[in-house]
Amino acid sequence: MEDKKNFELLYEGKAKKVYKLDEEKLLINFKDDVTAFNGLKKDQILNKGRINKEISKFFFEMLNKKGISTHYINDYDENSFVAEWTDLIPLEVIIRNYTAGSFCERYGVKKGLMFDYPLVEFSLKNDELGDPMITKDAIILLKITTEDVLNNIISISKKVNDILRDYLKSKRIILVDFKLEFGISKKDNKLTLIDEISPDTCRFWDANTMESLDKDVYREEKGDLINTYEVLLGRLDI
Amino acid sequence: MEDKKNFELLYEGKAKKVYKLDEEKLLINFKDDVTAFNGLKKDQILNKGRINKEISKFFFEMLNKKGISTHYINDYDENSFVAEWTDLIPLEVIIRNYTAGSFCERYGVKKGLMFDYPLVEFSLKNDELGDPMITKDAIILLKITTEDVLNNIISISKKVNDILRDYLKSKRIILVDFKLEFGISKKDNKLTLIDEISPDTCRFWDANTMESLDKDVYREEKGDLINTYEVLLGRLDI
Ligand SMILES: Nc1ncnc2c1ncn2[C@@H]1O[C@H](COP(=O)(O)OP(=O)(O)O)[C@@H](O)[C@H]1O
Ligand SMILES: Nc1ncnc2c1ncn2[C@@H]1O[C@H](COP(=O)(O)OP(=O)(O)O)[C@@H](O)[C@H]1O
Ligand SMILES: [Mg+2]
Ligand SMILES: [Mg+2]
Repeated sequence: MEDKKNFELLYEGKAKKVYKLDEEKLLINFKDDVTAFNGLKKDQILNKGRINKEISKFFFEMLNKKGISTHYINDYDENSFVAEWTDLIPLEVIIRNYTAGSFCERYGVKKGLMFDYPLVEFSLKNDELGDPMITKDAIILLKITTEDVLNNIISISKKVNDILRDYLKSKRIILVDFKLEFGISKKDNKLTLIDEISPDTCRFWDANTMESLDKDVYREEKGDLINTYEVLLGRLDI
Repeated sequence: MEDKKNFELLYEGKAKKVYKLDEEKLLINFKDDVTAFNGLKKDQILNKGRINKEISKFFFEMLNKKGISTHYINDYDENSFVAEWTDLIPLEVIIRNYTAGSFCERYGVKKGLMFDYPLVEFSLKNDELGDPMITKDAIILLKITTEDVLNNIISISKKVNDILRDYLKSKRIILVDFKLEFGISKKDNKLTLIDEISPDTCRFWDANTMESLDKDVYREEKGDLINTYEVLLGRLDI
C-alpha cells in the first residue's frame, strides 16, 4: 500500500478518509470503522474497508457503463479509489422499494411491504441536526440546490434504482432501500453520483431467506458483519 | 349554556370536545385547556375556549363566503359551534410564509426569513408517533389519501393562505404559518376544511412590533396568553 501521507487529508468522516490528489481529483479511502445510530455504536472491523471499496467500485463501474456519471475514475489500492472531486450537495437521497428501518419506525408500519412505485426521500446531510428529513420544496426554498438539479437528482436516482434492482434480482437479492449522494464535478460542472454504494448504505435481503446482507446485521446484532459482507461479495460478479 | 349531556361525546382531544348531533353533524366544543410540546406543558386558562371559538368561527365564515368548503355550519353557544361531520384525513397540513418554530429547529435556520413562495408541509396526525413529517409520495404510497385528494388539499390550503394573509395584512398582522386539517363530508363526500383556525394553530406576528399574537407566548412564556388572545380578537372584525 502506497503512503498517503503526501496527500492533503481534506476530510475524515465516519467511514472514509478523503484526500486531495489534484485540483480535480480525490482519493477515497475506505476505513475499517463501522458506526450506527449517528455514531452512538462504533467498532473497528478488519477487511470492512476493502470489501466496501470493492463493492462500491463494482457498482460505480456498472453505472458508468450504463451512462450514469459517477465520481469513480480508477482503482488505487486495496482500500482506496480515485474519484472526481465535486462540490458536495448536502443531501442524502433515500430510495425505497420496500418498507424498512427508519421509515417503519417513523410511521408505525410493518417492514417488508412493497411500494407501488419507488419512494424517493431526502435528508439534509448535517450530523449536528441529525440528518433531518426535508421536502423538495424546502430544499428549493432554502436554496440547498436548484429545482433543475433536484429534478435531475430524482431522475438519476430512479435510473440507479432500476439498474441495481434488476442486477441484484438476477443474483436473488432484493434491493430494499439505499442512500445516494451527489455533487457538482469541479472539472466539468456535471451532476455526479458520489460517495459509496455498499452494504453500509443499502439494504439487501436474500430473496430466498429474507436475511439481511447489509449493515442491519450490525445495527440489530443479527450476526457477524464481516461474514455477511463476504457472503454478499461472493454473490456479486466481483 | 345548553346541556350537552344528551349528546354522545365522540372524542375528547387536547383542545376540544366533539359531540355527535346527528348522522351528519357535530358539535365542536372549545375547552379552556392549553397544551404545548405534544402535551408535556399543560394549563387551564379561563375564556380561552370562547375566544378560540369566536376566532375560528370568524375565519370559517370568511372562507365559506369565499367559496372554500369548511365544516362550520352555525353558532351554538359561547364555546361551541355546529359543524359538518367528516371522515377525518389523518394529516396536518402546515403552510409556512416565514421560517419559525419547528422548521428553524429542524434545519438550523434563523426565524423570520420570508420564503419565495408558501411552503406546504405534511405531518401524519398521530400523537403516539409524535406527528411525524411525511412526504407527498409517502402519503400516496401508504394510501393515507389519494393523489387527487392530496392535490386538492394543497390547492385549497394555498387559497386559504392567500385569503387569510391578505385579510390579516390589512390588520397589520403577519401570517407566519398555520396548520389545517381536512375531512370528507359524510353528507356529500366533499373535501372539507375542518377543526379550528385560531391562535392555537396559527403563528400571527404584529407587523409593527413583530410580537407574537398566538400560542408562542405560552410555549415560550413571553407573556399572558389570554391578554394576547384578547388583543388579537380586538384587532379582527369580530
Ligand atoms: N466525489 C466527492 N466529492 C466531494 N465529496 C465527496 C465525494 N465523495 C464523497 N464525498 C464526501 O466525503 C465524505 C465521505 O466520508 P464519510 O465517512 O462517508 O463521511 P460522513 O461520516 O460525513 O458521511 C462524505 O462527506 C461525502 O459526502
Ligand atoms: N368536522 C370534523 N369532522 C371530523 N373530525 C373533526 C372535525 N373537526 C375536528 N375534528 C377532529 O376532532 C378533534 C378535535 O379535538 P382536538 O382537541 O383538536 O384533538 P387533538 O388533540 O387530537 O388535536 C381532532 O382530532 C380533529 O381532527
Ligand atoms: Mg457517509
Ligand atoms: Mg387539534
